[in-house]
Amino acid sequence: MPAKGAHVDVIVGGGIVGLSIAWRLARSGRPVTVADPAPASGASNAAAGMLAPVSEVTYTEAPLLRLGLAALRRWPSFAAELAVDAGLAGADALDFRTDGTLDVAFGADDLAALDELAAFMEKLDLPVERLTGRECRRLEPMLAPAVRGGLLAPGDAWVDPRRVTAALLAALDRLGVPLVRARVSELLRDDGKVTGVRLTPPDVQAPGVADGGVPREVRAERVILAAGAWSAALAGVPVRPVKGQILRLRSSQPLLGRCVRGTVHGSSVYLVPRGDGELVVGATQEELGFDTRVTAGGLYELLRDARELVPGVTELEVADVVAGLRPGTPDNLPAIGPSGAPGLTLATGHHRGGVLLAPLTTAILLGEEGELAALCSPERFRDIS
Amino acid sequence: MPAKGAHVDVIVGGGIVGLSIAWRLARSGRPVTVADPAPASGASNAAAGMLAPVSEVTYTEAPLLRLGLAALRRWPSFAAELAVDAGLAGADALDFRTDGTLDVAFGADDLAALDELAAFMEKLDLPVERLTGRECRRLEPMLAPAVRGGLLAPGDAWVDPRRVTAALLAALDRLGVPLVRARVSELLRDDGKVTGVRLTPPDVQAPGVADGGVPREVRAERVILAAGAWSAALAGVPVRPVKGQILRLRSSQPLLGRCVRGTVHGSSVYLVPRGDGELVVGATQEELGFDTRVTAGGLYELLRDARELVPGVTELEVADVVAGLRPGTPDNLPAIGPSGAPGLTLATGHHRGGVLLAPLTTAILLGEEGELAALCSPERFRDIS
Repeated sequence: MPAKGAHVDVIVGGGIVGLSIAWRLARSGRPVTVADPAPASGASNAAAGMLAPVSEVTYTEAPLLRLGLAALRRWPSFAAELAVDAGLAGADALDFRTDGTLDVAFGADDLAALDELAAFMEKLDLPVERLTGRECRRLEPMLAPAVRGGLLAPGDAWVDPRRVTAALLAALDRLGVPLVRARVSELLRDDGKVTGVRLTPPDVQAPGVADGGVPREVRAERVILAAGAWSAALAGVPVRPVKGQILRLRSSQPLLGRCVRGTVHGSSVYLVPRGDGELVVGATQEELGFDTRVTAGGLYELLRDARELVPGVTELEVADVVAGLRPGTPDNLPAIGPSGAPGLTLATGHHRGGVLLAPLTTAILLGEEGELAALCSPERFRDIS
Repeated sequence: MPAKGAHVDVIVGGGIVGLSIAWRLARSGRPVTVADPAPASGASNAAAGMLAPVSEVTYTEAPLLRLGLAALRRWPSFAAELAVDAGLAGADALDFRTDGTLDVAFGADDLAALDELAAFMEKLDLPVERLTGRECRRLEPMLAPAVRGGLLAPGDAWVDPRRVTAALLAALDRLGVPLVRARVSELLRDDGKVTGVRLTPPDVQAPGVADGGVPREVRAERVILAAGAWSAALAGVPVRPVKGQILRLRSSQPLLGRCVRGTVHGSSVYLVPRGDGELVVGATQEELGFDTRVTAGGLYELLRDARELVPGVTELEVADVVAGLRPGTPDNLPAIGPSGAPGLTLATGHHRGGVLLAPLTTAILLGEEGELAALCSPERFRDIS
């Protein structure tokens, strides 16, 4: 088969990051192709969709906070434009909501940690409000009586990642972007330059062109690697899978008005309400390699911690439990931009922030974010090829 | 449409009880028809399959113990004959196992209760062995270190109810028994005598004969009502739904060699190992009407209690969670035999014992169990018609 499409960008990975890049590039007139054996089925499908850089802040991750805040500022227009391109009524159709995150504390130790965090956030000029237990319950009446105080980050937002990837797929379809449902088994290289991808269609080993017209190779001017936890197998980028198990409950009416998080028995749990009454409970963080089993222990922890925060969840129906693999990096920052190999650009390593950072990632690749781009440059990792 | 098949027995309900009756009657040469919109999908599909009359004994249910012991004695030949009729290699193919049940105790109170139970069982001449915590762990090394003692009922058995219903359906198919996949909406009556059933095929409202050749009525010499929790809607039998949620875990190798049960935080839990490594954890008992939702609270209790008994379950994959409705009666005994209405026979109200009691139920209906039949006679309930 002759080399074809050598002028296109091939995007490896159809999660929220890869699809967002494809959409933005196609919108700007660039020919793109997306390759993924099962688009929108990995970490993006498992993600809760918190857009919460403020409530996620920790003492050691100032660069990540900067990225998160910049990404959050891009979300309203990203959501509005995506809704238009996907033919939806508006950003509401993505369940994009901006009602803030409430971080709650139980015992005296938790409360002290919360006060320390509040002081730290004020020093960073982050807009947070320290609330008493009573004030927390006034905002969220379903909270446990044992909640003794909270920290409200009113600027934090959230979105339904499944609706976002569905909208991205619809927008790509309308823009005529080809979506090749096949696994990229290898990057094609020519004298050190990356020139395309080799494809393995699901369950097809025949030579030449495979079933369903999937080509065995696609030539590209640029390959953009957005394969999440699977990126390390294709290039030398130090990305590892960090397993997260997540639970979806179903309720006839919403139990919460905003995202609620807390630390229970030393483990962090959050609850994200959807407009349709769904309540997402997340998430475990496990270093187990490429393991996506839902386990008794993971599910137990989620249920235990959710009950502790909001006892009323007991009555809710269990709708869905899935596990996904976050692409973790050694410094918890994503790797976005040109790699050491000509023709290969990275957009991976988003760890827990893929949904939040997707609009910023596309902006960096389009050259709109010079200073933040430097923070994410893959050059900080050696031996990437 | 003319009345047809008036010489047949129509069995309403394709759970383990209805299918067992159909198989036994068809085997004896009797023409039978089974009606169920979704055979083998209700309580039989949810059941763990413990055949454990000894470990289930309580102080107040001597009649149920008698029924259970008689039923257990019938299980080996029932399983062997069913395997032959279904074309299976043997009773092993049903995962029929006779390795006993181990009832374990944690705290001092539990241990005292266990001693009392052991004394009671010995008085009844039931074969049980009182074990120390160490002896329990020698039998079952995966038991929690906190287990302080146990009671082994070596004669108790278990079976995989899903394999049993699949085998019954295969046996009925080989015997040429018609299976009408439709809901029985009403019993047909003529001068007080029950003469057949009215059928509502799924999603079909057209008059006359419905899609797929399902007739709107089937005439019968005898209607045998084996509709479990749905029996009350068709005849006046006092059967109510008792919800049970049950969890299936998957393991590469079996964690347990026999059934293990215990009381954790005041709630009873049991674990049933399957030959293929599956571990069944059951079950909640909830009085919520016709509610088959899997809830966060139900799942939480099962996971919590299973972890307490066998900490190693934490690592197992969650394979399946379902809820079923047991048909409960006011005295916890089934209703088996002729009802007050001519032409109507009952085989319902088996509550937690449908799998165990299925072989005995067929024997009672075939007239093989005079004395035990009296215990189950529907005549003890008034107004059944």
